[in-house]
Amino acid sequence: MPIVDIHTHVYPPSFMALLRSRTSVPYVREFPDNPSAGSRLVILPAEDTASNSRGRPVGPEYYDIKEKIAFMDIHKIDISVISLANPWLDFLPSKQAAETARRVNDDVERMCGEYPGRLYAFGTLPLSAPATDVEEEIERLGTLKHMRGVIMGTSGLGSGLDDPALDPVYEALEKTGQLVFLHPHYGLPNSVYGPRASNYGHVLPLALGFPLETTIAVTRMLLSGVFDRVPKLKVLLAHSGGTLPFLAGRIESCVAHDAHLKKEGKMANHRSVWSVLKENIYLDAVIYSHVALKAAIDTSGSDGIMFGTDHPFFPPLEEGEKEWLSFRTNYQAITTALGEDQKQADMVLGGNAMKILGLAG
Amino acid sequence: MPIVDIHTHVYPPSFMALLRSRTSVPYVREFPDNPSAGSRLVILPAEDTASNSRGRPVGPEYYDIKEKIAFMDIHKIDISVISLANPWLDFLPSKQAAETARRVNDDVERMCGEYPGRLYAFGTLPLSAPATDVEEEIERLGTLKHMRGVIMGTSGLGSGLDDPALDPVYEALEKTGQLVFLHPHYGLPNSVYGPRASNYGHVLPLALGFPLETTIAVTRMLLSGVFDRVPKLKVLLAHSGGTLPFLAGRIESCVAHDAHLKKEGKMANHRSVWSVLKENIYLDAVIYSHVALKAAIDTSGSDGIMFGTDHPFFPPLEEGEKEWLSFRTNYQAITTALGEDQKQADMVLGGNAMKILGLAG
Repeated sequence: MPIVDIHTHVYPPSFMALLRSRTSVPYVREFPDNPSAGSRLVILPAEDTASNSRGRPVGPEYYDIKEKIAFMDIHKIDISVISLANPWLDFLPSKQAAETARRVNDDVERMCGEYPGRLYAFGTLPLSAPATDVEEEIERLGTLKHMRGVIMGTSGLGSGLDDPALDPVYEALEKTGQLVFLHPHYGLPNSVYGPRASNYGHVLPLALGFPLETTIAVTRMLLSGVFDRVPKLKVLLAHSGGTLPFLAGRIESCVAHDAHLKKEGKMANHRSVWSVLKENIYLDAVIYSHVALKAAIDTSGSDGIMFGTDHPFFPPLEEGEKEWLSFRTNYQAITTALGEDQKQADMVLGGNAMKILGLAG
Repeated sequence: MPIVDIHTHVYPPSFMALLRSRTSVPYVREFPDNPSAGSRLVILPAEDTASNSRGRPVGPEYYDIKEKIAFMDIHKIDISVISLANPWLDFLPSKQAAETARRVNDDVERMCGEYPGRLYAFGTLPLSAPATDVEEEIERLGTLKHMRGVIMGTSGLGSGLDDPALDPVYEALEKTGQLVFLHPHYGLPNSVYGPRASNYGHVLPLALGFPLETTIAVTRMLLSGVFDRVPKLKVLLAHSGGTLPFLAGRIESCVAHDAHLKKEGKMANHRSVWSVLKENIYLDAVIYSHVALKAAIDTSGSDGIMFGTDHPFFPPLEEGEKEWLSFRTNYQAITTALGEDQKQADMVLGGNAMKILGLAG
């Protein structure tokens, strides 16, 4: 059975050129007075300090597809379903968005074509463009050979994924059989991490901000009834759903005990959280522990979980380590969680993705 | 084996009198122009609207210990370890804090004495008082017959539980063998719930804000090295640890991949998240699903999980329902998660609490 990585990012050359042309967040720049800093990517306002090593280094592992293939070869990954990394196209002025999306998606499609059988992709939507442009791009993505859905952040059209104005987007995705890969980006306000957060490197926003953002975004979708209105929408959640498999029971209980919702009859006909998690939601296996992976499997079924790496993020800190610790941790979580059941482990490692995304190796 | 409820709240009469005497958050008041609203408790600034039904109803189930005993009898709960509900004494001016804490703790101790063998308690600390007063109250609580530790929010002395100024408090608790029951209260900034949050009743802050607050607070403790400096500190986490059992792997991985922390050598000698979760942290079983409870058991061991109800919160919405749905959901999560292993289920339902807290029924 092939190994398939469904959570693996690229900034294709066209997107890098766009980021290099910009002077406000998000952007990429060099610092002539600190050449050792290399090219730096600044994607969040909080990172945009005065430092000449602000943001994070962005090297060829982000934009040179040969590096992706080399990573795949080292780790015996047969197929990668690549996707643009955050912040996608959320920041574009409305007028440029549609054309930029087409250019970036074509660039990604071209990359896939260069390595037949090894690369597929999730496209990116021009969410700041007029609705008809978004729907046109969804239609167009459905015709591209290697595209299997779209990646999307949690801001939607600017006010979240529970925005009723997104319904036509969800419906177009449902109609064309493309899934939405939901991925966090904005995190939580810095205030929640307290006055000592800078002592802890990037741990708090990365380890907690991202999964909590996903949890809140999807719970808002659940409560707004997206999955009632678009019942066949398929969503793939990054990082095993943030924390949803763990909190699903509490969410369901809070709904059942909410006097206000009951009085208004609002949730009376909603599908349960459990039903949506089982029938509409796929989870990646990027969760770094067999404990959590077991909860993910219990929630979305072992046929709904797909291996991923989050490459090129979380590289090893030691020079010369060929196998990445982040890869190994997630790989071992699967084999540990599924114990002796090699067949199920194989499905999570690749079989599910082949089937769900209709891939051919 | 007795059934023990370790997560069950009271506002003893002395605390109710304090809240009734106040005119700013937190406070309790009646609204003469809306008598049907009854006594209303307003505990968070966001609830303090102009409405004459603001906050939430607060009836005898909160302050009349007979109601607690009646709830216990209906649900066959043998022993309850009662604790003051949020916001505890966080809001008190420094000068009043120590005396108020003594009065409230004595009131709770008196309640326990009235029902021998049925009630124990966690005390409350005057965290806004001078440090020596806090340590004196810890010493004093250690001498009260029914006290088994303290309940605490996430603000600590005002800037979080990763505040080094709390070390003497943690050390005094460690020394006197009292555990800290950490409980959320402040939630997350409303902005994270987006512009449609008011459509969803109280679900988002209750279902997500509380557990996410706990997760962030404890992760800050872990990263600041509290458990390295006070290695025998015992902490009981509300709501099965917020989301910690699910996110522990991601936290550990983010620490291992943080170039900044590595460069500064900060985490080199820290105990792992898994070790702290296993050796220092107990989890309640207030998580409303067997999926999450299994993750909690995998994390802190079936000998580290203790049944709880969160009474009197989450009452049934239907009139005349004797057995509470919130009780039943948490009870069934235990029997489902532990399947046929009745002995382990009994330990989670009561045996662990008897042993860990040294209770006698």
